[in-house]
Amino acid sequence: MNRPDPKDVRNITCIGGGVIGAGWAAGFLAKGYDVVVQDINPDAEGQMRRIIDSAWPSLEAMGLSEGASRDRVRFTTDLADAVGDADFVQESGPERMDIKQDIYAAMDAAMPNDVVIASSTSGLLMSDIQAKSKNPSRMVLGHPFNPPYLMPLVEVVGGKKTDTSAVDWACDFYRVAGKHALKMDREVLGHIADRLQQAMWNEIVYMVDADEATPEQIDESIIYGFGPRLAIMGYCLLFHLAGGEGGMRHFMKHFDPSVSDDWTRLPSPPITDDLIEKFAAGAERLQGDRSVEELQIQRDEALVGFLQHFNKVTGKG
Amino acid sequence: MNRPDPKDVRNITCIGGGVIGAGWAAGFLAKGYDVVVQDINPDAEGQMRRIIDSAWPSLEAMGLSEGASRDRVRFTTDLADAVGDADFVQESGPERMDIKQDIYAAMDAAMPNDVVIASSTSGLLMSDIQAKSKNPSRMVLGHPFNPPYLMPLVEVVGGKKTDTSAVDWACDFYRVAGKHALKMDREVLGHIADRLQQAMWNEIVYMVDADEATPEQIDESIIYGFGPRLAIMGYCLLFHLAGGEGGMRHFMKHFDPSVSDDWTRLPSPPITDDLIEKFAAGAERLQGDRSVEELQIQRDEALVGFLQHFNKVTGKG
Repeated sequence: MNRPDPKDVRNITCIGGGVIGAGWAAGFLAKGYDVVVQDINPDAEGQMRRIIDSAWPSLEAMGLSEGASRDRVRFTTDLADAVGDADFVQESGPERMDIKQDIYAAMDAAMPNDVVIASSTSGLLMSDIQAKSKNPSRMVLGHPFNPPYLMPLVEVVGGKKTDTSAVDWACDFYRVAGKHALKMDREVLGHIADRLQQAMWNEIVYMVDADEATPEQIDESIIYGFGPRLAIMGYCLLFHLAGGEGGMRHFMKHFDPSVSDDWTRLPSPPITDDLIEKFAAGAERLQGDRSVEELQIQRDEALVGFLQHFNKVTGKG
Repeated sequence: MNRPDPKDVRNITCIGGGVIGAGWAAGFLAKGYDVVVQDINPDAEGQMRRIIDSAWPSLEAMGLSEGASRDRVRFTTDLADAVGDADFVQESGPERMDIKQDIYAAMDAAMPNDVVIASSTSGLLMSDIQAKSKNPSRMVLGHPFNPPYLMPLVEVVGGKKTDTSAVDWACDFYRVAGKHALKMDREVLGHIADRLQQAMWNEIVYMVDADEATPEQIDESIIYGFGPRLAIMGYCLLFHLAGGEGGMRHFMKHFDPSVSDDWTRLPSPPITDDLIEKFAAGAERLQGDRSVEELQIQRDEALVGFLQHFNKVTGKG
């Protein structure tokens, strides 16, 4: 087994020197890893260094790990050279299936069999990317959020041929590296977060098209309205709170979908009792042993801090 | 004209003593206004005082106006008594058209003709609420976000019979009272922000129903992923940045809707050249004279502050 313990990872290879690949590199450097960045375009080195340099002040503000240095990155155009000594590979190449499959075949040939390879892909499924690989069991999805050096979330899931040990290893490694690994139960196009964003974005496109709102009004409604709340609580916990004493059960029964179907171009699915129970059970697990009052206090304390910081950044306070 | 200058408003009446009505009252008290809260249920007084008390520490942290005091609220069950001396009325009664129309008729009979009445309604249109009123020209929508004592956004729009002077007055008043007034160009069910949230929520309901994600995974994908970004920038500016040098024009052309149609149950509308121009022009107005690099620095500085605060609140840092 050439797969190190997640805590013992030292050498990380990032495939692709663009916004996502170099953003990953910046984050790994800040955690004290040695990083190799590979891109077939030799000009990518300059761009990569600019991205790392522009990320560094934020990473310093968040706190660098011991020994972390921007000098510990090496650039190469040679894929085999890039991955030969890697303890872990984060692939952020072009979003084209044929290119991805070629890259994975080349990596397979140049690396020990057990080392985990994660793909940053937004729009492709690992089951398709790994389909032609000789050694697909160590290939996982590891989808970050922009900017990857700051946002904690990484969505992790295997393809049909992925071994569960590789998925678990990737989750453990990302946590060691300071990320929030969200282990998904199954593959789905767009993963989780991008699907939600796409539904909202498509409603935005319809609204602007129909002159129901301008792009400026859309953005104002987000940053002064529901945006700050979503930095603290997701909709399942927020609507559990909105349901008052009855929580999510009350919320889903009270808000009859026929009422809200005219609010958006995406009509609600039928709200069955089973579905209400699924949401209620999830909301109760999210609530844990915190009372509704405690949750409200936590929400408000976080909001106050966010709003004060927002006012400072925008020069309003 | 009995409508005072927005700066001279002293007496505010909040109709409804629930979470939204009492939340409004708390926010107005913190700004130093005298507030009357009316609710036909005498038991609502206790609930109202609990809501104000629980909001007060957050309002103190945000900074109270001179003379602001929780003692400056009076409760009554009598609607005519509540509105007789009001400089402005914020109505947050039940979301039922028949009840709303009765309340508006009763207010009309008990108030000077010019004083502005704003409704907090989420699900009804002002054109319908005001349909049977004798004096509908001063009635506007003024839709807040929960918790109304903290969230800045108020969506403002008139109904068919509303005078534009009332809409402008309401926007001016909300700004004096420390809110962010978003003046809409036309009425639409769900207004702006709730339509966007509903599209996302309905996609969430489908995903949980299909076992593509659990409620916990949904919420994790929000608070560790795209949520914190939405506290800083809306999608129009975020995607303008995501488009790189080409901005929104590149973003909308590059992300062919056929690629993303499988990402959500709400397919994209056709992306015409006219629509791309509408978005691009809006995004450029949002960008103003800030360079892409300046915007990225502002985004990252705000994110760093939010993440540090989030870690503190959740005990992670």
